[in-house]
Amino acid sequence: MTERLPVILERVIEVPKTTNPVLVCGLPGSGYVGKLAADHLVESFNLRKVAEYDSPTFPPQVNVKEDGTADPPRGELYYAAPRKGRGLFVFTADAQPTTSEGEYELSEAVVKFAKKCGVRRVYTLAAYITGTFSKSPRVFGAGTSKEMVSSLKEGGATMMKDGGISGMNGLLIGVAALRGLEGACLLGETSGYVVDAAASKAVLELLSKVVDLPIDTSKLEAKAEETQKVITQLQAMAEQAGETAPRPARESRPGYIG
Amino acid sequence: MTERLPVILERVIEVPKTTNPVLVCGLPGSGYVGKLAADHLVESFNLRKVAEYDSPTFPPQVNVKEDGTADPPRGELYYAAPRKGRGLFVFTADAQPTTSEGEYELSEAVVKFAKKCGVRRVYTLAAYITGTFSKSPRVFGAGTSKEMVSSLKEGGATMMKDGGISGMNGLLIGVAALRGLEGACLLGETSGYVVDAAASKAVLELLSKVVDLPIDTSKLEAKAEETQKVITQLQAMAEQAGETAPRPARESRPGYIG
Amino acid sequence: MTERLPVILERVIEVPKTTNPVLVCGLPGSGYVGKLAADHLVESFNLRKVAEYDSPTFPPQVNVKEDGTADPPRGELYYAAPRKGRGLFVFTADAQPTTSEGEYELSEAVVKFAKKCGVRRVYTLAAYITGTFSKSPRVFGAGTSKEMVSSLKEGGATMMKDGGISGMNGLLIGVAALRGLEGACLLGETSGYVVDAAASKAVLELLSKVVDLPIDTSKLEAKAEETQKVITQLQAMAEQAGETAPRPARESRPGYIG
Amino acid sequence: MTERLPVILERVIEVPKTTNPVLVCGLPGSGYVGKLAADHLVESFNLRKVAEYDSPTFPPQVNVKEDGTADPPRGELYYAAPRKGRGLFVFTADAQPTTSEGEYELSEAVVKFAKKCGVRRVYTLAAYITGTFSKSPRVFGAGTSKEMVSSLKEGGATMMKDGGISGMNGLLIGVAALRGLEGACLLGETSGYVVDAAASKAVLELLSKVVDLPIDTSKLEAKAEETQKVITQLQAMAEQAGETAPRPARESRPGYIG
Repeated sequence: MTERLPVILERVIEVPKTTNPVLVCGLPGSGYVGKLAADHLVESFNLRKVAEYDSPTFPPQVNVKEDGTADPPRGELYYAAPRKGRGLFVFTADAQPTTSEGEYELSEAVVKFAKKCGVRRVYTLAAYITGTFSKSPRVFGAGTSKEMVSSLKEGGATMMKDGGISGMNGLLIGVAALRGLEGACLLGETSGYVVDAAASKAVLELLSKVVDLPIDTSKLEAKAEETQKVITQLQAMAEQAGETAPRPARESRPGYIG
Repeated sequence: MTERLPVILERVIEVPKTTNPVLVCGLPGSGYVGKLAADHLVESFNLRKVAEYDSPTFPPQVNVKEDGTADPPRGELYYAAPRKGRGLFVFTADAQPTTSEGEYELSEAVVKFAKKCGVRRVYTLAAYITGTFSKSPRVFGAGTSKEMVSSLKEGGATMMKDGGISGMNGLLIGVAALRGLEGACLLGETSGYVVDAAASKAVLELLSKVVDLPIDTSKLEAKAEETQKVITQLQAMAEQAGETAPRPARESRPGYIG
Repeated sequence: MTERLPVILERVIEVPKTTNPVLVCGLPGSGYVGKLAADHLVESFNLRKVAEYDSPTFPPQVNVKEDGTADPPRGELYYAAPRKGRGLFVFTADAQPTTSEGEYELSEAVVKFAKKCGVRRVYTLAAYITGTFSKSPRVFGAGTSKEMVSSLKEGGATMMKDGGISGMNGLLIGVAALRGLEGACLLGETSGYVVDAAASKAVLELLSKVVDLPIDTSKLEAKAEETQKVITQLQAMAEQAGETAPRPARESRPGYIG
Repeated sequence: MTERLPVILERVIEVPKTTNPVLVCGLPGSGYVGKLAADHLVESFNLRKVAEYDSPTFPPQVNVKEDGTADPPRGELYYAAPRKGRGLFVFTADAQPTTSEGEYELSEAVVKFAKKCGVRRVYTLAAYITGTFSKSPRVFGAGTSKEMVSSLKEGGATMMKDGGISGMNGLLIGVAALRGLEGACLLGETSGYVVDAAASKAVLELLSKVVDLPIDTSKLEAKAEETQKVITQLQAMAEQAGETAPRPARESRPGYIG
């Protein structure tokens, strides 16, 4: 007989001493908006890994990289203090868990660790799908408290008024609230058809104001320009074919109509 | 390593002293019939929250309200004695659990708490889908004992004779019976296409007789009139287009044919 | 916090003293072949209930009967000695569990109880779907040992040579074998379109020989005649419409082609 | 009440003394490429069974063989030293688990056992689906370390550069890496439409070089020729009908486009 695996296996590398830290989370979702933004933060602020999360609820597979090496999906928590007086945790993962329980357990584990390290506010980065291409994507927002809602509004976010935010990028702020922290979700407007660096850039620019931390997004701008070329091609092809665009899957959704 | 979360996390706010209490449950389902009715009871009798239920089997998401604030799905149990000699528990939730096990566990937790507080009879409010619009919706019924069946008939319910009642609004009376209580389900006739306050009103009027408790349903009447306008528009549009209505998803279903 | 429910909750009513007992199982599946046959055995031999099985992996619902009463799905084990020197356990349920784990756990619980009571051989009754109507349905068979295969052949069964038997009616003999017992499955040929009492009757006639127990199937014959009328109507309608029959879901299936 | 079954039940028959052992795994997947190859190794090297794995996450069914006997799905680990100085474990199963957790738990159990017996390198055999028939199938590869990638390249594998490998044949090397071992996956090019012994043969020929072990694949060659006849027929039929081939399900998949 073998023992049942825990749903989440947390490997702590370091419990960092922090100064006024926030937690920012971006996992793969529509348009990879949150994932691209989180990866950009890790790279540009040279954050160090402080914890890893394995789970039997991740998709049972390995992902292959350009050099032929393969890894199972994993969650990773990073930390550094990019400027004096502002610590920054970033959580990202290669995939979202495949079950509701997996998503709750992973959210709980990350929020618990962050809370222990002094985090009071949790931000998630996600996509707001419109199905159409926008050259200057808006940023939508939702918060778990009136203070968070005000803070997002001041930063320039268009507040959501109904609907839901599905998956880890939504759930993480819900679990944060259940554990006594505050949470907010920033959603970049995107078509849902392509990996959208422009939406990631827009989301990070608003985050920059809200957490008072300068973020250099020039690398994302370069990626966004490449995407823009793809979009232009797609639009040209669609016009030629006289096709209407298919409806993309959505990370955010409007409320029940009635 | 992190510990596995319990399927249901119950937070008791108060174990109320009760007088002859019943438990009424209405969760989101077809047409929101049960949910609207349960919310109406909580509001109109000014019930106070006595317990909260979180669960990793709820859908992994947050729901956004009009003021931009976001919450994860949660179950809530309310109590008060609306009149002398009649205590009233109401259980509702933002969503139904996503797994069979989650539905059973949540039903068990709520029934156990209610039983401990002296509840002997459990009523659930649900939808009976017909696929057509009715101006004076009937109320169908089923009970876990002959006494409950008689009581519903006296109140004016049309008894179901076969089929099943799916989800928490069905299961809760089954679990009640397994734990030695009596249960009955009241199902309001509805098309299944719109949020149907008229069906909720019909269900509450019958409940009012069965549990001997006056219920003011005038607010639901106002909502029902708004819905009626939407229905009239839908019918006009359908006539113009010559369309036949699609078959809605059903909370109740007929028996196996053979 | 509430404790996690066990996957199977077994309530033992009686541990019967047995003489040379066999276990026969029939759960709802294609054409209700196994379920009808198991119910017939319980009724005609006036078996008494010796154990009940609840499970959060059963479908979360209640089923309504003709008198308006509603019950959650449940498994039931019955016993009696229909003739001197031959004990008979019959296991049936209102539904099959909704998860693989639920099916394994329920199979384990029933097999364990039966083994403790002296059972050495487990028979399951199921459907063999052909998609066409047959007036004299054949009975197919498969066994977990060469002895069981020989015994079925002697009884007149056509042995399966490949494919699989899905669900509890297949799994139960697999689990029996894993626990040191012998198992055999008898599958009645059926179209898969209707509840098929003729297939149930054919299966019981073969079982009668194999376990050396006279079984009066006249009541099933009456049901089968009613079904035959329905079939005749269906065929007439299909001929008029020039339709080809849809492919039914299958409890048994052929092997991988290659 | 009955106890919850463990996800994996491991029955150790023998803990073999090994010399420089490797573990090779092939489970049922697209085209049965990995399963055929693993079965071939067990047979041709006359390996002995050292452990069995049952699990309630395997599909709930029994599989019937030519002689009419039926078995539930099971995992099996074999061992022998085909030549001096090279021990060989082979793991295969009748089916893949039905849940992510089941796949992780089974992978963990097998990798743990193999590691305890001295295994440092784990190889999985899988299919690389192209949707078209190839007379001389290529072998693709991916590894969990640069050393493994180099080793596969030297053996003649075309390295994958993106995408994922789904299911146990992918996950097993990921879990191996998580537990401190090295892993590599060899994927035989196949159409995905038929059981493909030619792809299995190609995979084993490359494995032979990489683990320095002569493997006689003549029996697979005979099977491959039979398959080739089936393919020729399929192609003739498709040409007649003017049909384009349907898209097969894929064990390997390309990366996210963007």
